[in-house]
Amino acid sequence: MSKNNASDLQNQFANKAQAWSARFSEPVSDLVKRYTASVDFDKRLAAFDIQGSLAHADMLAAAGVISAEDNTAIEQGMARILEEIDAGRFEWSLDLEDVHLNIEKRLVELIGDAGKRLHTGRSRNDQVATDIRLWLRAEIDQSSGLLHQLRRRLAQLALEHADTIMPGFTHLQVAQPVTFGHHLLAYAEMFGRDAERLADCRKRVNRLPLGAAALAGTSYPIDRERVARTLGFDGVCRNSLDAVSDRDFAIEFCAAAALIMVHVSRLSEELVLWMSPRVGFIDLADRFCTGSSIMPQKKNPDVPELARGKTGRVNGHLVALLTLMKGQPLAYNKDNQEDKEGLFDAADTIRDTLTIFADMVGGIRVHPDAMRAAALQGFATATDLADYLVKKGVPFRDAHETVARAVRACEEQSCDLADLSLEALQAFHASIQQDVFQVLTLEGSVAGRRHIGGTAPDRVRLEAERVLDDTASFS
Amino acid sequence: MSKNNASDLQNQFANKAQAWSARFSEPVSDLVKRYTASVDFDKRLAAFDIQGSLAHADMLAAAGVISAEDNTAIEQGMARILEEIDAGRFEWSLDLEDVHLNIEKRLVELIGDAGKRLHTGRSRNDQVATDIRLWLRAEIDQSSGLLHQLRRRLAQLALEHADTIMPGFTHLQVAQPVTFGHHLLAYAEMFGRDAERLADCRKRVNRLPLGAAALAGTSYPIDRERVARTLGFDGVCRNSLDAVSDRDFAIEFCAAAALIMVHVSRLSEELVLWMSPRVGFIDLADRFCTGSSIMPQKKNPDVPELARGKTGRVNGHLVALLTLMKGQPLAYNKDNQEDKEGLFDAADTIRDTLTIFADMVGGIRVHPDAMRAAALQGFATATDLADYLVKKGVPFRDAHETVARAVRACEEQSCDLADLSLEALQAFHASIQQDVFQVLTLEGSVAGRRHIGGTAPDRVRLEAERVLDDTASFS
Amino acid sequence: MSKNNASDLQNQFANKAQAWSARFSEPVSDLVKRYTASVDFDKRLAAFDIQGSLAHADMLAAAGVISAEDNTAIEQGMARILEEIDAGRFEWSLDLEDVHLNIEKRLVELIGDAGKRLHTGRSRNDQVATDIRLWLRAEIDQSSGLLHQLRRRLAQLALEHADTIMPGFTHLQVAQPVTFGHHLLAYAEMFGRDAERLADCRKRVNRLPLGAAALAGTSYPIDRERVARTLGFDGVCRNSLDAVSDRDFAIEFCAAAALIMVHVSRLSEELVLWMSPRVGFIDLADRFCTGSSIMPQKKNPDVPELARGKTGRVNGHLVALLTLMKGQPLAYNKDNQEDKEGLFDAADTIRDTLTIFADMVGGIRVHPDAMRAAALQGFATATDLADYLVKKGVPFRDAHETVARAVRACEEQSCDLADLSLEALQAFHASIQQDVFQVLTLEGSVAGRRHIGGTAPDRVRLEAERVLDDTASFS
Amino acid sequence: MSKNNASDLQNQFANKAQAWSARFSEPVSDLVKRYTASVDFDKRLAAFDIQGSLAHADMLAAAGVISAEDNTAIEQGMARILEEIDAGRFEWSLDLEDVHLNIEKRLVELIGDAGKRLHTGRSRNDQVATDIRLWLRAEIDQSSGLLHQLRRRLAQLALEHADTIMPGFTHLQVAQPVTFGHHLLAYAEMFGRDAERLADCRKRVNRLPLGAAALAGTSYPIDRERVARTLGFDGVCRNSLDAVSDRDFAIEFCAAAALIMVHVSRLSEELVLWMSPRVGFIDLADRFCTGSSIMPQKKNPDVPELARGKTGRVNGHLVALLTLMKGQPLAYNKDNQEDKEGLFDAADTIRDTLTIFADMVGGIRVHPDAMRAAALQGFATATDLADYLVKKGVPFRDAHETVARAVRACEEQSCDLADLSLEALQAFHASIQQDVFQVLTLEGSVAGRRHIGGTAPDRVRLEAERVLDDTASFS
Repeated sequence: MSKNNASDLQNQFANKAQAWSARFSEPVSDLVKRYTASVDFDKRLAAFDIQGSLAHADMLAAAGVISAEDNTAIEQGMARILEEIDAGRFEWSLDLEDVHLNIEKRLVELIGDAGKRLHTGRSRNDQVATDIRLWLRAEIDQSSGLLHQLRRRLAQLALEHADTIMPGFTHLQVAQPVTFGHHLLAYAEMFGRDAERLADCRKRVNRLPLGAAALAGTSYPIDRERVARTLGFDGVCRNSLDAVSDRDFAIEFCAAAALIMVHVSRLSEELVLWMSPRVGFIDLADRFCTGSSIMPQKKNPDVPELARGKTGRVNGHLVALLTLMKGQPLAYNKDNQEDKEGLFDAADTIRDTLTIFADMVGGIRVHPDAMRAAALQGFATATDLADYLVKKGVPFRDAHETVARAVRACEEQSCDLADLSLEALQAFHASIQQDVFQVLTLEGSVAGRRHIGGTAPDRVRLEAERVLDDTASFS
Repeated sequence: MSKNNASDLQNQFANKAQAWSARFSEPVSDLVKRYTASVDFDKRLAAFDIQGSLAHADMLAAAGVISAEDNTAIEQGMARILEEIDAGRFEWSLDLEDVHLNIEKRLVELIGDAGKRLHTGRSRNDQVATDIRLWLRAEIDQSSGLLHQLRRRLAQLALEHADTIMPGFTHLQVAQPVTFGHHLLAYAEMFGRDAERLADCRKRVNRLPLGAAALAGTSYPIDRERVARTLGFDGVCRNSLDAVSDRDFAIEFCAAAALIMVHVSRLSEELVLWMSPRVGFIDLADRFCTGSSIMPQKKNPDVPELARGKTGRVNGHLVALLTLMKGQPLAYNKDNQEDKEGLFDAADTIRDTLTIFADMVGGIRVHPDAMRAAALQGFATATDLADYLVKKGVPFRDAHETVARAVRACEEQSCDLADLSLEALQAFHASIQQDVFQVLTLEGSVAGRRHIGGTAPDRVRLEAERVLDDTASFS
Repeated sequence: MSKNNASDLQNQFANKAQAWSARFSEPVSDLVKRYTASVDFDKRLAAFDIQGSLAHADMLAAAGVISAEDNTAIEQGMARILEEIDAGRFEWSLDLEDVHLNIEKRLVELIGDAGKRLHTGRSRNDQVATDIRLWLRAEIDQSSGLLHQLRRRLAQLALEHADTIMPGFTHLQVAQPVTFGHHLLAYAEMFGRDAERLADCRKRVNRLPLGAAALAGTSYPIDRERVARTLGFDGVCRNSLDAVSDRDFAIEFCAAAALIMVHVSRLSEELVLWMSPRVGFIDLADRFCTGSSIMPQKKNPDVPELARGKTGRVNGHLVALLTLMKGQPLAYNKDNQEDKEGLFDAADTIRDTLTIFADMVGGIRVHPDAMRAAALQGFATATDLADYLVKKGVPFRDAHETVARAVRACEEQSCDLADLSLEALQAFHASIQQDVFQVLTLEGSVAGRRHIGGTAPDRVRLEAERVLDDTASFS
Repeated sequence: MSKNNASDLQNQFANKAQAWSARFSEPVSDLVKRYTASVDFDKRLAAFDIQGSLAHADMLAAAGVISAEDNTAIEQGMARILEEIDAGRFEWSLDLEDVHLNIEKRLVELIGDAGKRLHTGRSRNDQVATDIRLWLRAEIDQSSGLLHQLRRRLAQLALEHADTIMPGFTHLQVAQPVTFGHHLLAYAEMFGRDAERLADCRKRVNRLPLGAAALAGTSYPIDRERVARTLGFDGVCRNSLDAVSDRDFAIEFCAAAALIMVHVSRLSEELVLWMSPRVGFIDLADRFCTGSSIMPQKKNPDVPELARGKTGRVNGHLVALLTLMKGQPLAYNKDNQEDKEGLFDAADTIRDTLTIFADMVGGIRVHPDAMRAAALQGFATATDLADYLVKKGVPFRDAHETVARAVRACEEQSCDLADLSLEALQAFHASIQQDVFQVLTLEGSVAGRRHIGGTAPDRVRLEAERVLDDTASFS
């Protein structure tokens, strides 16, 4: 068929309903068209759709299903389409329902029959699954990088504050002194696990569904492993029914994203708290804060609050996808079209949030004096006194009891343990000696916790360096 | 201050940061601006924002806080702004962050100082809460109407099929014969409860937060009850801290929307099943179906499948909002800005879905023969035989046992209960007489269930008429 | 059939599989038995199951379906069973699967054939739906009472602290002074809405499904309205298919419970924060706190923390139920058995939590000095200064700008607005006079907000009295 | 301190409040005790708690913190306690709050001071985190094995039915013929991914938190790597604040469990559908079904339905944990106690479900005739005809259009494509020849899809063998 019946072809695609129209006696209504169309949100897959199509065409040509000329024409047509899209000149049509038909129709306009041969041996079912996986792989790579950048910033700040002492809280009560550097590194650990999870998820994303066709595979002599190599996939999906209906990878990604946001929400909670005037441990740079339209004095930590709020959104997308897939019979059902918007938004949310947080952590202004003052409140070294007693031979449970009595006495006298005289301390236990005052200082307390995972400044420096080494390629 | 320093004013609003800029030493970055801005999605509140502002200005004027001239100027300015928005000529600026500042800035451009006085005695915190409530109230009213329209269509179809017999399923096994009309009315009940829930939710939506100002109320002599009356609210929120931070109404709405979608998903599941070739109970009009890009013979029930999938989305929004509000201290926190997108999408989803479903139910083509054939499979009248025996004086549990034995025998002979001879039946229980064959027919079975809620054709007609009466104003 | 074949009957029930065994060639395995049985958790419905059975038997007798003697026997048998259960002497059997068969089997043991007649005209499908509704109605009534008790405690404490000034926070930054009483009343509002929601939910819970039988109704001449009256239901479910498969009421209750827990989580967050040593606004009574096994000095606000954590559990149950019902075809499917455990746990969680919170709120020890000190930090009266300027004729937006400049200057000099001299203030705006110092005090600020919903002490007293009147019957 | 003051010690533990009582002036109320206690559910961790304690004691002895004698005493005491627990003789006390204090108190009873020394250098915060990880690791190992067993059963059945043809569905419409073996292997793929995910999760579970103590580490010279080796952990948690507060592993496990249940729900949906009389593709063994208390003829697929319903429960637990962790400040808060019940239930649910499903799949009775009959309905080979035309040189999009017209004609004549004469077929396209009838048969259609992932019998056999090889150690 020559290009001179291109008008016919255009007609065939004139609206998407025509793709199957011969069997239908009535067009879809406008509302139904809008309800069922995905082009508004799936057009962001365009570059990946083209990438997948080119790999498919290359394989069809290698397998002799299409001619080398057809393949060349497809390459040229797709190059032009990509250009049009990048330049904002591509005309997206709701009538053509989705990104796939929009591009294919334009391809047929541009190159005629060769364009019509592209869809040989595939279906939109395996095509869209391939597109999303290509897109998601790129998102994972980008967000992994951002996680490591954020870890770097945390580690850098931790290194600066390896010696800065703050109260360690449990139950928001002062528990024991810790270093601020140590506290920051807790988040470096969390975001490190997040990066691990994304890497694990990536393994399962990076498998090729193309070749599953509509659901059963195809009778063309396709070479799926060639396509996988071309597209950089680690392997191929080994069952066609599963390949077109599987959305595990989207759910697994959203679960990983939800955990990222849980960590973000915890850090945000602390930033907000630390910036509250009664606490006053830090200030955020003005560029992450906003004022009030009514209260002229306000400087609000908008970014961490909003990020904390966005935790909900990602949890929601995870639930949406789990609900979506529950009880779906094999193979592809239209329900699956609902996989995209939530997934896109989850990916956008973590990308933007991590980008901003890396910048924001870099802009934290620390108030060591406020931290120190707070650490001196609340008997933070009581545990050290108990440990001191144990080292003198007192069983732990008895030592604990002794210190509790001392704390109670201090509370009644409104003083700290370190403020008691040796005599007063000895009244609680005879084995207390002058050297007790070493462990009752904040510095003594933190310095004693030198083991892996401990809060001692030296250990914090070691760990921060380890994180910096780990993430050196993301600086 | 005269209008001739309007350029100053424009300057002041030139970007939103200026609204509080005097205290800030650094502008927000572009990414932060995009991250924290809401104008892209909250501009849909514009008409409600203006409506609220007009009621506020009217009250300020009545209270003598602003002059009558100012009020008139505000009215005129707002009329023009509304026009600009409707005509698509209004320039929305990301720099102005949200719908409120965009409109206020334009108002000041148009009318000068009077515009600057509008924000007296209120804050964006109570303003946005008012806007969302006004918007949500309108959405509730619209979706309630759609629920009743859908119920009408179900009742109309039920009336047509009050005598059409289909198998009633439990566990997707044939249980007892029911009428198709009865089956449809089950959904009319569900959507009826949904409408009740929306009405209950509306009571709590329809309370005025305006006057809470930022969080503590205001020192201006405001008259909140006047504003409530002007805006058609049923009452005023009675605590300012609660008024600005409460998002219960959004969560309650999403919970009601989630239940609507659960019902939609159940109906969709059945439509998809009924249209599957092995079942073949119905056909959907072509305009709700799509074909396949690869399989030329397909006609797919896209709309019910997609609707079933959209259940996930609404569940997700509900979870997002619940997560959002968990553990937030009073009063307003920036987290709350995350209340909108999910809520908007939930409202859009149920509105579109209900609209399409009302149309789709009207377009169902029923295949009574296939229903009847299916009802004759699976010993649907076995319960009737048991009941027959009980009426003859056999205790229910014994009758049940007897019939189970008869069914087992039929299965072995691949026949139905009605196919057994009287002698054969009497072998199972001596009290069986010729009149047993009345209850073993489908018609006899359904006709016997005449009580409220039963499947008898007469009862179905009564109930369908009741629904039609109920919803008469939505025809 | 006479009682002398009671051994037969016992046999018939000897294990639950026997209830339908004649058609089955193989018993269920032990794991399957355990997997599918519900008696471990549904036995808590026993009293309601009996209540429902008695109402059903009464109606059957009135309708002549069973004899008056049978009815009397059933009443006596059930009275004895209830006694056995209350005394812990009832033997629950996993083989009998659920609460219904356990009780029915015992009834047949006790009274013979009359017991076998009880199940006439009903099914476990409508029976269990009735039981849950009866149980849930009682739970709703109890939790509603607890909500009002909690509101009373809040209002009582609010009345005591109508004049106690604390900083009102937005974004955890000091915004404006509020009274502690006002802050507490925000929660009285939230829990008030919760009670409204439970009342609305109760309307839909309180409808009778009994009479729907398995799914289609029954051919016995039942009188459902009589049963509804006996059981105190407001009405009857009007469609049998819907009646046996509807679990809306459970979902609606869980949604209401989730909102209760959201409110609890917000209050808990604040209690934990207020008790943190840097804030120190309150202390909780020791009986709601725990210590540490390692840190002798700790007093941890365990109860509010745990309650905050339990928010997750109730959200989870809501999601579980929504997931459960998604896409279920009519009518009853075994999936529905999963409705109970989550619902039970949600009800238990709110009951226990509300009980403890009512007690805990009563035991809050307030530190007004710490609150006052905090309110003096952070320029809490800046808005009052802006309002002062507006009242002097300055447009709001300009006044806001002026105050922002004054705040910035104070920050640089580490002083409060009230610490500036009149001259210094006038440097920011010429219209400032001596009377400005009235509005710059905390007392002046709160006293000015007298409107409905405002924080003024007088208003707080009025609102607290209103809540106390509202809840007078729950004292 | 010698053993003769053991009564003192017992006293000290007499109830758990005593563990910190010296600072408290009031005991917790009974309701609070019940509300905050975890022993009812965490006692299932007992064996892991003891395992962790033994490893800790061994390390303390090696480090010289406790004596060898103490260590031996601890070993002997713990052995006895384990015995008591296994024998059901251990007395669990609510007063002792949790599994840790219950065991420790008993240890002190048994061995005196040595028991009191065990808690040296650790806290309940790191202790419980260690226990859960040990427990979860065991659960993961067990469930992974069950996943592979289930895969084996699927592969065995697939091998038997590599040639059995059924309709492949998309949108529950007949799409193309597939083999039943191919369909089953789709699930083997899904459960294979689940096993991968569990293995990935295990890596992050299998890290040692012990040594983090309460939050900051300890001043004792502990050797965490020794403990990790003893307990078989892959590594140690590298930040103490993170170690005690991290619950990522629980969330990640629940997310993996939720996906398992999604797959179970999909398989269940199909089993229920396939067993419905209109479809009749399979029967489940009676031991997985139940009957009806009212409908004597019913055989209900209870197990798959209930399993489908249990999807909700696991989704719910995932949401609960995500909600729980949202916004929690570091380090340990009491909220975290809420991590257990949902996690336990999720693990139980997948373990029981997978066990039953492995058995149930083995007991599926297949009806190939019903499958074949269904495959002949719905123009399942229409795509093959289109592919045939393409191979004759017709562009795909044109071939698609041609076949759609042929299908429409068949529908009007109520016949299948294979029923048309060659002449009739040629009327749709001239290039159709006699060889077309090869591709229009079901066997021809499936045989043509031989590539990796295709439905051809030979390919199915290869893949089934691959799965069997993979899982050989789980037979």
